[in-house]
Amino acid sequence: MSNQPPTDGQSDAGAGDRVYHVNGRLVPRGSARVSVEDRGFRYGDAAFETMRAYGGQVLDWERHLARLRRTCETLGMAAAVPDDLALRVADTLDENDLADAYVRVTVSRGPQSGKLTPAPAADLDPTVVVVTKPLPRGGLPDAGGEPVWDDPAVVQTVGTRRMPDAALPADAKTHNYLNGVLARLELRQAANEAYDPDEALMRDLDGNVAEGATSNLFFVDDGALKTPEVGDLLPGITREVVLELAAAESFPVERDRYDLDDVREADEAFLTNRTWELRPVATVDGIDVGSGPITSLLRRLYDERVEKQCYR
Amino acid sequence: MSNQPPTDGQSDAGAGDRVYHVNGRLVPRGSARVSVEDRGFRYGDAAFETMRAYGGQVLDWERHLARLRRTCETLGMAAAVPDDLALRVADTLDENDLADAYVRVTVSRGPQSGKLTPAPAADLDPTVVVVTKPLPRGGLPDAGGEPVWDDPAVVQTVGTRRMPDAALPADAKTHNYLNGVLARLELRQAANEAYDPDEALMRDLDGNVAEGATSNLFFVDDGALKTPEVGDLLPGITREVVLELAAAESFPVERDRYDLDDVREADEAFLTNRTWELRPVATVDGIDVGSGPITSLLRRLYDERVEKQCYR
Repeated sequence: MSNQPPTDGQSDAGAGDRVYHVNGRLVPRGSARVSVEDRGFRYGDAAFETMRAYGGQVLDWERHLARLRRTCETLGMAAAVPDDLALRVADTLDENDLADAYVRVTVSRGPQSGKLTPAPAADLDPTVVVVTKPLPRGGLPDAGGEPVWDDPAVVQTVGTRRMPDAALPADAKTHNYLNGVLARLELRQAANEAYDPDEALMRDLDGNVAEGATSNLFFVDDGALKTPEVGDLLPGITREVVLELAAAESFPVERDRYDLDDVREADEAFLTNRTWELRPVATVDGIDVGSGPITSLLRRLYDERVEKQCYR
Repeated sequence: MSNQPPTDGQSDAGAGDRVYHVNGRLVPRGSARVSVEDRGFRYGDAAFETMRAYGGQVLDWERHLARLRRTCETLGMAAAVPDDLALRVADTLDENDLADAYVRVTVSRGPQSGKLTPAPAADLDPTVVVVTKPLPRGGLPDAGGEPVWDDPAVVQTVGTRRMPDAALPADAKTHNYLNGVLARLELRQAANEAYDPDEALMRDLDGNVAEGATSNLFFVDDGALKTPEVGDLLPGITREVVLELAAAESFPVERDRYDLDDVREADEAFLTNRTWELRPVATVDGIDVGSGPITSLLRRLYDERVEKQCYR
């Protein structure tokens, strides 16, 4: 039995030589540290974005920047995103000699040591971190592109329910990620020698299918592309792009509330996030679902878009 | 208008000379840092306890240790609490020459740099931090004890709902604290020159009164002591102690579901947490509630307990 989480194709080779960007400076990975009084550490009081650079260019940079700003606004620190963030990302990629990379940007509220209670002070001293790591080339397979995952996803429904919007705004991408961590931890219990699920499917409090611990869900039924549209959903950028690609091809698309049987009985299913891009689903709760023509076509369209926007 | 959060009586004088305990070593405050890859920073993937030392002794140490272990168990890292934690706390107090102090212990899952996704690895390399800061002497006023707060609490109901147990176990005290941070941020909007609330009262998703952002709520009505008992509640240790003190005095005690009017129309009300101890409530949503004989008696009993357990 393997209890190791998926590595998403990320190699840690050469990790020791890596350089990260912390508060305006490039520093060796071992020195990339924050105060134990940083509110990002104490309370998860931070916004983040996970992006991919392809051929040195961050895909959909403007969308990530806009979402990061929205999250910071939700957290009452709209001014925390530095104006030169794009430059910091570019410098970090350059310094690490990376063209195809995972890029994670964090903006935490910073250290506020004088306050015991979690009411943030109005004055801002944010902590801004950029971490980059190598990934394989993306884009079209003919051009050398390859997925970061080895196999289609094995998806298992978990008991942990998706955090409701009323408690934590669903469109804020924050360091309060225990909801997803606990969902993923449940996979350990479900695993055995013959079964090793690697994504946890969460429902909302009403039992509607919501999303994976780190991914959005799509499935295909009766020739239509379907994806959950519930209030408690992180609006993934890859999800948004897939919906745009489907619309451009005039695919019938349905966004609605679905139960688990809708997904288990689907003709095809796939997960989306920035790192995985589109990852087919092998099984849901042990039931075969698999890929198919619509998944394959959307993957090809996504790869073409990456190729056009970043490699040409 | 003051947007500054309450400082809970904590002075930051001498903060520069302070020493914290990080992963088994006492280090100057400025060097008390964690990796940006620490899961406590990335995901709020950490357990914590806030305690008070009185006369050099941590009040209710065993209860804090038990809750910390429970939280770590919920997070799937039961073995992360070090055996010598009490010694680390004592050393930190000693080194800072503190007898009356705020003590915060954090156990995070530690750095796991090789994994992009929030599924924690099974092997553990936790980050353990002890932070101490001076507080006034506690215990009986005649013996020199004084509260850490200057005034009774001004309580304002907020829209942010208490995170439900189904999404994040309510009895886990973790670094996913944005729910409370967002509740406190709402107080900024409510504040004006004449009104400056300093605790946010949260309801559960069904509208029942739950708890403050960093405190539990008690109120007195018809001579009975009442406190919300809903599924989505952090079981505060001070709350537990107050219930024991009331039981020992044979006070009528009621734990039930309450709506906001129950609290607004109460004869007395107070908040509890480890730092504040029992803090009377001046107003709820602008409506006078105030202290009274039962609050005063319970405060006295609490002070006597502190005096007996720690100063004698």
